Amino acid sequence: MAPPAIILVRPQLGWNIGAAARAMANFGLDDLRIVAPRDGWPNADARAMATGAGDILERARLHATAREAVGDLHHLWATTARHRDMAKPVLTPGEVARACRSGDLRTGILFGPESTGLANDEVVLADALVRIPTSGRQRSLNLAQAVLVLAWECSGSPEAVTEWRTADAPATMAEFDGFFDQLVGALDSSGFLRNREQRPVTVRNLRTMFQRAGLSGREVRTLRGVVSALAGRPDGDSV
Amino acid sequence: MAPPAIILVRPQLGWNIGAAARAMANFGLDDLRIVAPRDGWPNADARAMATGAGDILERARLHATAREAVGDLHHLWATTARHRDMAKPVLTPGEVARACRSGDLRTGILFGPESTGLANDEVVLADALVRIPTSGRQRSLNLAQAVLVLAWECSGSPEAVTEWRTADAPATMAEFDGFFDQLVGALDSSGFLRNREQRPVTVRNLRTMFQRAGLSGREVRTLRGVVSALAGRPDGDSV
Repeated sequence: MAPPAIILVRPQLGWNIGAAARAMANFGLDDLRIVAPRDGWPNADARAMATGAGDILERARLHATAREAVGDLHHLWATTARHRDMAKPVLTPGEVARACRSGDLRTGILFGPESTGLANDEVVLADALVRIPTSGRQRSLNLAQAVLVLAWECSGSPEAVTEWRTADAPATMAEFDGFFDQLVGALDSSGFLRNREQRPVTVRNLRTMFQRAGLSGREVRTLRGVVSALAGRPDGDSV
Repeated sequence: MAPPAIILVRPQLGWNIGAAARAMANFGLDDLRIVAPRDGWPNADARAMATGAGDILERARLHATAREAVGDLHHLWATTARHRDMAKPVLTPGEVARACRSGDLRTGILFGPESTGLANDEVVLADALVRIPTSGRQRSLNLAQAVLVLAWECSGSPEAVTEWRTADAPATMAEFDGFFDQLVGALDSSGFLRNREQRPVTVRNLRTMFQRAGLSGREVRTLRGVVSALAGRPDGDSV
């Protein structure tokens, strides 16, 4: 799978070009194409904004027209915020991302100028439109932000990679029980569990809380120290 | 479902604050909180960048510390680019988005300053970390771009939802802090934290353990009773 080319058509502000390049670098895209930039090329503002993405700017290809810029691509999507009266499918960024990942084909995404968006004869080059759904409050996405959303989606954000950061080994059941028995003993001595009817429920609830924390062996030893310190007695059977 | 609050901690550049507000408006978020902005508040650069999001800036709440800014929230995530040696789960933006959608709870996402990211004692406030996976070429996301990725993900359509594990309403940050401050006070009195060099690490580790348990408000009240009983003193400010 090759990530899509990003094609900026008649971009107006150098810093948007630079910010788009940086967003591409953030998410592993590197084929930037620029069609007729308003302020010429190279552009100092673009360079200033392209932190860590200078090489993407240097390798960016310059073209006179959108049509010329996309000749080598197999699939092309055109971003558009407005409704266009064209019989083309309208995809979400997620659908574009899936399409980009589904083969060895060369793909690209067209972005229009900040003020007006793509002209109709540029939109018509594309197989499909892509619209980034935005809130009614502020429908208009900044150019570099639109590039970012598509780059992010195309990078195929990894799904569940939840890692627990306990470097230590988890407590064994016996270690956990050692701590918990100590806690219950201390609570019995203090009178906290004196309601005999309520006692089993309270003990079970406490156990559940501490189990949910997924304690390491080291953490269990810390908690034994905590109970001993609070109860003002040395921990009788420290592990 | 309420979208998460966005909490910018010690942001440096006004135009990043404005661009973050615009990204929030694009995707239907509107609770912006700003902690100790470097250049004071209000900020002309922020306003200039916040096209269509002026009302979000106007309603943004200003706070002196991250801790003060998050007291009313039930769940809090901290964005971090670096590895942090803390026993907290690390989530993807998609996982955070699913969690935000899974109930009526008030949630928030912490973002650190542009240059340094969050301090450890700010990260430690959060239930979990969120990392936006980026390419090796340019790992560092601009602050407003990071807000955009999370706002975009959180605006997405509901899918499978992560269930929070307690039937009762989770504790708010302020409820949790009330318990935790009581615990630390009792441990200070008992001499458990007398090693001044070790104290901050021990306190952080203890906090992380209890946070991992995902305590409900009721459970927090039980633990307050536990600490009071063990320490042999009435709980001064029971909730």
